[in-house]
Order: sequence, then C-alpha cells, then structure tokens
Amino acid sequence: MKAFISEIFKDCSALSSKGQVADYIPALKNSSIDNLGITIIDTSGEIISYGHHDKKFTIQSISKVVSLLLALEDNGTEKFFSRIGKEASGDPFNSIIKLETSTESKPLNPLINSGAITVTDMIHGNTVEEKFERLIEYFKLITGNEELKINEEVFLSEKETGNRNKAIAFFLKELGVIDSDPLKLLDIYFKQCSIEVTTKDLAKIALLLGNRGLDPISGKQIVNKKYCSICNAYMTICGMYDGSGEFAINIGIPGKSGVGGGILAPVPERYGIGVYGPSLNKKGNSIAGIKLLELLSEEFDFSMY
Amino acid sequence: MKAFISEIFKDCSALSSKGQVADYIPALKNSSIDNLGITIIDTSGEIISYGHHDKKFTIQSISKVVSLLLALEDNGTEKFFSRIGKEASGDPFNSIIKLETSTESKPLNPLINSGAITVTDMIHGNTVEEKFERLIEYFKLITGNEELKINEEVFLSEKETGNRNKAIAFFLKELGVIDSDPLKLLDIYFKQCSIEVTTKDLAKIALLLGNRGLDPISGKQIVNKKYCSICNAYMTICGMYDGSGEFAINIGIPGKSGVGGGILAPVPERYGIGVYGPSLNKKGNSIAGIKLLELLSEEFDFSMY
Amino acid sequence: MKAFISEIFKDCSALSSKGQVADYIPALKNSSIDNLGITIIDTSGEIISYGHHDKKFTIQSISKVVSLLLALEDNGTEKFFSRIGKEASGDPFNSIIKLETSTESKPLNPLINSGAITVTDMIHGNTVEEKFERLIEYFKLITGNEELKINEEVFLSEKETGNRNKAIAFFLKELGVIDSDPLKLLDIYFKQCSIEVTTKDLAKIALLLGNRGLDPISGKQIVNKKYCSICNAYMTICGMYDGSGEFAINIGIPGKSGVGGGILAPVPERYGIGVYGPSLNKKGNSIAGIKLLELLSEEFDFSMY
Amino acid sequence: MKAFISEIFKDCSALSSKGQVADYIPALKNSSIDNLGITIIDTSGEIISYGHHDKKFTIQSISKVVSLLLALEDNGTEKFFSRIGKEASGDPFNSIIKLETSTESKPLNPLINSGAITVTDMIHGNTVEEKFERLIEYFKLITGNEELKINEEVFLSEKETGNRNKAIAFFLKELGVIDSDPLKLLDIYFKQCSIEVTTKDLAKIALLLGNRGLDPISGKQIVNKKYCSICNAYMTICGMYDGSGEFAINIGIPGKSGVGGGILAPVPERYGIGVYGPSLNKKGNSIAGIKLLELLSEEFDFSMY
Repeated sequence: MKAFISEIFKDCSALSSKGQVADYIPALKNSSIDNLGITIIDTSGEIISYGHHDKKFTIQSISKVVSLLLALEDNGTEKFFSRIGKEASGDPFNSIIKLETSTESKPLNPLINSGAITVTDMIHGNTVEEKFERLIEYFKLITGNEELKINEEVFLSEKETGNRNKAIAFFLKELGVIDSDPLKLLDIYFKQCSIEVTTKDLAKIALLLGNRGLDPISGKQIVNKKYCSICNAYMTICGMYDGSGEFAINIGIPGKSGVGGGILAPVPERYGIGVYGPSLNKKGNSIAGIKLLELLSEEFDFSMY
Repeated sequence: MKAFISEIFKDCSALSSKGQVADYIPALKNSSIDNLGITIIDTSGEIISYGHHDKKFTIQSISKVVSLLLALEDNGTEKFFSRIGKEASGDPFNSIIKLETSTESKPLNPLINSGAITVTDMIHGNTVEEKFERLIEYFKLITGNEELKINEEVFLSEKETGNRNKAIAFFLKELGVIDSDPLKLLDIYFKQCSIEVTTKDLAKIALLLGNRGLDPISGKQIVNKKYCSICNAYMTICGMYDGSGEFAINIGIPGKSGVGGGILAPVPERYGIGVYGPSLNKKGNSIAGIKLLELLSEEFDFSMY
Repeated sequence: MKAFISEIFKDCSALSSKGQVADYIPALKNSSIDNLGITIIDTSGEIISYGHHDKKFTIQSISKVVSLLLALEDNGTEKFFSRIGKEASGDPFNSIIKLETSTESKPLNPLINSGAITVTDMIHGNTVEEKFERLIEYFKLITGNEELKINEEVFLSEKETGNRNKAIAFFLKELGVIDSDPLKLLDIYFKQCSIEVTTKDLAKIALLLGNRGLDPISGKQIVNKKYCSICNAYMTICGMYDGSGEFAINIGIPGKSGVGGGILAPVPERYGIGVYGPSLNKKGNSIAGIKLLELLSEEFDFSMY
Repeated sequence: MKAFISEIFKDCSALSSKGQVADYIPALKNSSIDNLGITIIDTSGEIISYGHHDKKFTIQSISKVVSLLLALEDNGTEKFFSRIGKEASGDPFNSIIKLETSTESKPLNPLINSGAITVTDMIHGNTVEEKFERLIEYFKLITGNEELKINEEVFLSEKETGNRNKAIAFFLKELGVIDSDPLKLLDIYFKQCSIEVTTKDLAKIALLLGNRGLDPISGKQIVNKKYCSICNAYMTICGMYDGSGEFAINIGIPGKSGVGGGILAPVPERYGIGVYGPSLNKKGNSIAGIKLLELLSEEFDFSMY
C-alpha cells in the first residue's frame, strides 16, 4: 500500500493548485497550499504514513463527529434524536434556510453547523468551561493523544469573525433549540474547532469508528458500538458537506472533512484513515485528499457498496 | 430467521393501521391496508418467504433502480453523470424547487422524480416503444422472471392523473435536460412504475445488487459491478425519499421504496430482501415494512456501519 | 410635452444597445433592438405620439391586465379572490416555487404566469374557443380597435416551445387550481399573449384604467370602476416583474410590461401611456421605455406618492 | 366623518376578539385586546379623534419609516440605494432566506427587519448614542411632539429576547452589509422600536408624508419632497408585511403597521391618519384598525387607484 501511495502521491498533490486554502480567518490562510499527508492504520496496529503526516492543523468540522459521540454518551439516543434530525439537508453546511422553512424546528442533522452547535449544547457540564473540559478529555481518550490542545490564534480569530455561526446560534436560541447563552456556547464550539491534530489523530478516531468502538490493538471497547454506527451513518449521509453523495459514489466509505484540510475516513473493519491537504475544492473538501482516497479506494476496493 | 420473523410479524403488521394506503390513483387505493409480506434470499439461493409474499403489486419508484442500471449500461458513467447529479436533495421526491434554484440545471440524483424521468430518457431506443421494450426485457433479466408485465389499470390511471410528473417533465424539457417529447416519455415512465412484482422479484434484484452484479447461484455476472456499487450508494443517500437518513441510521443498508408498498433492500454479500406492505408512513415508505427491517437488522446485525 | 419627448428621445433610445431583445421564441428575436415608440393620450382625447408608435408588436404579459378585468367582470370579486391571491411574490414571474411552498395552494397574484393562467381559466365560455372569442371581443371593446388580431407565427412558436408554462399549467391542475385541460387552456393563454398591438392601443387601455373605467372622451363607463382600481393596485404591486418596486419608487404610477417590449402605464386622472421598446433589461422590462417614463415622470410630476 | 366613524366604530372594535395581541415580549402582552383608537388630521389642521386615541403604545416597526427618512437625509439616494434594495420580498418580515439566496447581498427593502437594521446603521453619528440621539430628535421634529421617549420596559424586554433580530444582525455583519457591532446596533434599533406614541403622533407623520414633506399648517417644508415620495412608495409595496398587496387593493393608500398595534396611513394631499388597535391578524397588522380603514376608504374614496 505504501508503494502505491508513493506512486500516486505526486499527481494527487499537484491537484492542490486547482483548489484554495480557506481564507475566512487569517490563521487558516497561512496554510501551505501544496501540503498533503496521510496516515493509515490497520486493525493489527500497523501504521503507514506519507507526506505531511506530522503537520499540525485545526480539526474544524471534523470535531463534530467527536462531540456527536460524547453527546450520545451523555444523553442516549432517545433524548439525542428528540433534538437532532436524521436527514441530509441538500443545502450548504452553514445554511439557515431549512431552520426557517422546516415544520419541525430542529436541525436536520448533527453535521451541519446548526446541528453541531446544538450537539455541543447537549454535552453535560454545569458551566461552559466544564463542558469543554469534558469534551477535550474525550478527544484525548479516543485519539490516545494526551497532548491535544487548541490553537489559540485560530480560536480567537473564529471568535472574532464567526458572524455566520453567531447568526445561527441566535436563531437556534429563538427557536428554543438550544438552552445556553448563544455567545458562550459558541466559545466552546469555536474551541472544539480549533483543536490541533495530525493525520495520525484522525486515523486513530477513524479506526475506532470503523471497528464500532472497539480498539483492535488494546481490545478495549472505547466507544459504545451503537453510537459508532450512528456516527458512521451520519458521515455517509452528510459528512462531506454537499459533496457527500459524490464521496459515497466515488469512494464508498463514511467520511468527514473540515475546512482546515483534514479528512477522517473509516474503512469498516479494515482501516482508519486520516488525510491532510489544506487546498479545498468548491464544496469545502480537500481537493488532493479526495483524489488520494479515490485512487486508494479503487485500488484496494474500499467501497462498502 | 424464519422463526424470528414469525415471532415479530404480527406486531409489525399491526402498525399498518397507523399508516395510509397511497390514494392518488384509484387502483392503489384498493390495496388491503393490513397486508405484509417478505422474501429473503441468501447467497446460497435459499429463500425464506412469509405473509403476503405472493401478492402482486406495482413496483412504482423501485423501478428507478432498474432503469438506473440500464441507463448506466447504455451510456457509461461519464455520459450518465453529465446529466444526473450525485447528491441528496433534502426536498420531497416530487419537488421542482431545486431544479429552479440550482445553478446547475440537472436533477440532483436519479431517484427523485425529475432524475428518474431523465434516466428513462437516457435508455437507448429509437422510439418510445423500443425504449420500453428494452427496459422490460432488462427487468426480466435481473429478476429471472419472464412473466413480468404492467398493470394496465394502474398505468392508465397514472397517465390520466399524473399532473405533477407532467409538470416536472415539461420543466425538464424547458431546461434542456431531456430530449424526448415530455408526454411520450412519461408514457414509458408511467409504464415502468406500473410493472407488477412480488416480494420475490424484489429480493432477486436486491440479491444481485448486494453481490455487486454477480448472481451467486448461477455464478454469472449479470450486471456490471461498478454500476451496482453506484446504485447501492444512491439508494443509501436518497433511496427512501426524505426518510433515507433515518433508514441508514436505524437499519444501515441500502434501500429503495415505492408508493405501491414495496421495499427492495440488499444486505451486502449476505441477503437480498423484498418487502411488501402498502400502508405508508408520512414519508411514503411502508410503515410495517420498515419496522420489520429494523427488527431484522437489530437481530441479525445487517448494518454496514 | 412633445418637445420634451423629442429632446430626450435620442438618449433613451441609445440605451437600447445595453439590453437584449427577448429570444425565447424566434418570432420575437426578429424585433429591431433600437426601436422606441410612445403614445400619450390625455383626458381631453389629445394624442401625442413619437418614434415607432405605429409598429405592431405582440402584447405578451400586458394581456394579463385585460384578462384580469374580464375575469373580474365574469366572476365578481368574491369568487375571483377565492382563486387568486393579493400579494407580490418576490420571485421571478415564471417561478413555480411559491406554488410548492405556500400553504394556500393558489397563485399569489394574477400577474405572475401561474396566476394569469388561472385568470384565463376563469373567463366564462363553454369551450376554449368561446373563452378566447369573448376575450378578444373585450380587447376590442377597451381599445376601441376592431382590427386587433393575433400574430399566428408568434402564437405557434409559443405553443411549440412554451414548456415552462406547460409545467406551470400541469402543476396548477395537480393542485386543483384550474379546471380546464392544461394544454387546451394554454392555447387561449398563448393566443392572448400573441395579440398584436401598437402603443396607441396600450395608451387607450391605460387611459381607461387611470380614469377608473370611464372613457373621458365618450363619457361612457366602459369598465367597472372597482375592477379598474383592483387592476391598478395589482400593477403597482407586481406589474413590472421583480422591477415593480423600482418602478413605484422611480416613476410612481401603475405599470405593466411585456417581453414583446410594451409598457402600459396609467397616470391616474391625467394620461394613458403606451410605450414600445423591445430591448429588455435583466428584469424583462423595456430598457429604453423605462428611462423614457422616468424622465417624463420627473419632468411632469407623474408620481402618485 | 366623525359621525361615520362613530357609526362603524363598534363593529370594527368587535373584530378585535378574532385577533391576538403580540406576545413575544411580556410588555406587549399586557395591551388591552379590545382597544381601538384613531386620529385623522386634514390639510387645514383640523383633527378628528375617536376611541383610545390618547393611549400610549410602542411604535415598533412604524419607526422604520422615520429612520428611513433620516437615513435618506443623511446619505442621499445614491448611497442609500447602494445598500438597500427596492423590492418586496414575498417572505415574512423577519425572514433570513432572501439574504442567503439572493445574488446581491443587500436587504430587499428598508421595511423588512434586515433592511431596517441596515437603515439604522446608516444614520450618521460617531457613536451608537449619537445615532440614537439624532434619530429621536428627528422623531420629535416630524411629530412636533417634544415629549417623545422610549418605554424602558419594552426596550429591555426586546433587548433580552430579540434573538431573531440578533441572528439577522450577525448575518448582515457576515455579509458585510452593516458596519457597526451587531449587538450595539441593535441597541438603537430596539430603542427606536420602543418609542411611545399616540395615534396623533402617527397622524402627524402621515400628514407630512401625504403632503410630500410640507407641513400644511405651518407651510414649512419639514422633510425633503423626494424622500417622502420614496417612503410612500416603499410603504405601498411592503409597508404592511405580507398583507401589503391586500392593503393596496382594499384600501388603496400607503400604510405602515407595527406589532404594537399602530398603523400610519397617509391619504395623499388630503389626510394623515394614525390608528391604534393592538389585536393583530395573522399577518401582524391591527385587525380592527384595518377594518376601520377599509370602511373609511370605501366611504370617502381614499384609494389612489
């Protein structure tokens, strides 16, 4: 597999020039557009890494799958689904439209921004600080990386400029969907998006998800099996923004991307994959990362379908 | 498995009273609301059937997966995807909105009505009659059922009253998406929806799809592997109308439903399932059929996620 | 006034090069892009004409105000408003969206296509031919022009290519908004749009509307006063497609435009104005005609506000 | 006229029981549902008042016409229209949808909330306090009422609960439509909505608007003529939320309502009218007030059309 990656890597990387680095906050703009890295872990614990695999980047929207798991652990499925829908939206990730037009005033799924903010609101904790403390501890648990921390510059930048998310949060408050003070809640949300990871951290989470919560190396059940299933189904339906259907058809596995350039992708019962490539296509997904996964899926028959 | 089905069957069937039989055409209104039937075929060719498994009903929207396969065979992926999108719509199956608002004037996927009508337009044939002839022959091929034919009463009823589909077809013509005369094209489309099947026919198609086109019994590759993959991915993303996400989360396999009460569901590499239950929930899916599949999935771990 | 018109005419006419002639049917494409004509009739019967005032062109959407008056005469206000709304749509004239999303399934107003087609359905007559016969007789009555007839080439062209309107008509049928067969109804609708007029014909209708149905020259009440009021209010709210607000702010009188290049504009209690200029702006209104009316309104204080 | 009002007053007032007092903030909920008051001033300065004409109520959305006039005075038309559109939206007053879907990212008009917040942002002043100071002085100028002040309880209540408006303001900030800090800007906006008036204050503003800025009593030009015209046109197109078309058809004059129960309505060159009736219909307009204006319009031929 490593040989195959080394063979296709350059062509994939070259695609980066056709995309764009996220520029809505200064800190992201400074990413090197041609970076590309990948880590693949198999169920025996073997790790293949290539390219910029040890570059740190902010996790951004991929954090939504982690907060989703913790919110499920904290609330159980019944309570969770009373506040969060189960369907793709067909609209961009930061759209407010469906909140306004839908008859049910709850976010359509936990991976669009309105849903993810609601999910963060559902994490247990008496204060905002406590909620975040529990969330980052959970991050450390499922990555096995005790060093995880947020990138302060990115956090402050998002806090200052994230007006669209502020609009969404106040809209959710108006609809009675969230309980917390909108701006305080966004503090946690912006923090969780600002956690710095490498492709290895993402691969570790992906491996767990693909093994339904069982760490194949230690043999421990780290996450509830059912919650992993739910998370994988959500990623399939709406993990790649409005490129989710394309991802399912072309690659055939669950996936979740972030505007920081990361992609987390479990190959059920086989691999956990983490990719980093900050140059994004029009749908907000890593342009080189997607290509890399497509070629790997074709060669090693990743598709579940 | 049969014992388990017999155990849960009555409770599932009882749910039918909470749904409604499709009533937009007289012929469908006459279905018996409390009917429920299922056929499961495994890769060794063993068949389990229960309840109203030999009742004939019209295939309706489930025909979309068959025309999709034939259109892929006829056109190849490049041409196919130039006319059909890869994403869920987030709107009802018969919605016109996204056609009007989307920047790309092509249907979002082949399983909403606008996409399915376009798919039927792509089937090769010099005349409408020829297109349909090829389509029904293909139906016979993949079900192995030479007796398949349309229900004339349902066909004529849809032809007379299908004004929403006529609106969609003229809209597609206006956008330049379809080539054929809209009303003539709908003749084929209404015919394909009026083909009468039993749960066994659906189970046969599902088995093929779950085995990526290879008939496990004869050992013959009946359908192109890649096209089966594409079809399974589409069913996962948008096969159950706006209940697709819920189906993925709760049952975890691809599925396609029709307002006639049918559900086709492959359990990849294991089973092909066909269900019939004409009482529909609000999203247009068989209410008892969905429950039956949920309980089976839980018991026999169908979920791919 | 004539001196003023002659002074500004050339500058207005020059604007035509910045617009485009409607090209959705071949017959319209042949209009001379730089044509501009105007007729103004005052309440004493004095007529000022300038430019291409005797050029014949098809009335297109301006026919909607005439069918509206006849449908009101035929049905009275109560029945009329039970089938037609009173509000601007905020969407393009040929949009289907609000029909799909609105809770009330009736067209928002009689000047968008869905409303106008419904209005034509409301004209009395046992057959399609009879409805159209009554409508064209009514056109002759209010223009005082016995020579009016349709342009067969334009009619046949619209009949052949008007797929968007066919989509709308089938959608209306599906919603139960119209009674007639959609394609037969569109025959009348396309015919009424194909009636050939000159600016003088439009000015005559505008004079009647601005005088609330009383012909100031003959002293006869030709149209019901209340129905003229309703018509003027509708033109103000939504007569100029999604340029209606701009027309109200910049010119300040009711107006109705057609893609043939015509504008009908009453200056209440003072003038009836008809304009012809086939070069259209992006909103579908005569680009030179609008400018001409703006300058006239400024100079002679047309604004009602 | 007074005799006629006294005759119809009871019947109009009785309609109040069919509507509802605004309840989104506690302070408004305490209004007496059956209150109804009217003041009519003619151009000679004669005043007719009836019912609860001296009851104080918060001006709410009617303040939008005053801030609109001041923003026009402060910025001129060119700058004003570069930031504010000229069209009705066809959506509810507090909708965000068109901001998200429109290609031009500016509010469609100054009378929907997004537009009104932007208008307030355009009022000159170095600080928020200065902007509001200038605005309330302008209110005093055009009402001739030096006593005007805000209702602190209503202001604080809106400030605390106005999450929808906060969502809109952050969305506007994100789009680059407003310059100010969203929450600080809303402080002024909520204050302007909380100004307490009587029907006489509204009638005074209406008289000025109907006389194009010239106070008929003092003979002084208080407001720029052109700006009054623009304001009257806007009120006609979109002053009564999504009941604007109905108001134009049934009453035929410009009008602006507020959820506090007020209606401001100029009868051009004849009267200025202020109405108060806190029981609202589904569109957010005073149910008894609308009826009162309809009957007056019919009897005294108010309609401009």
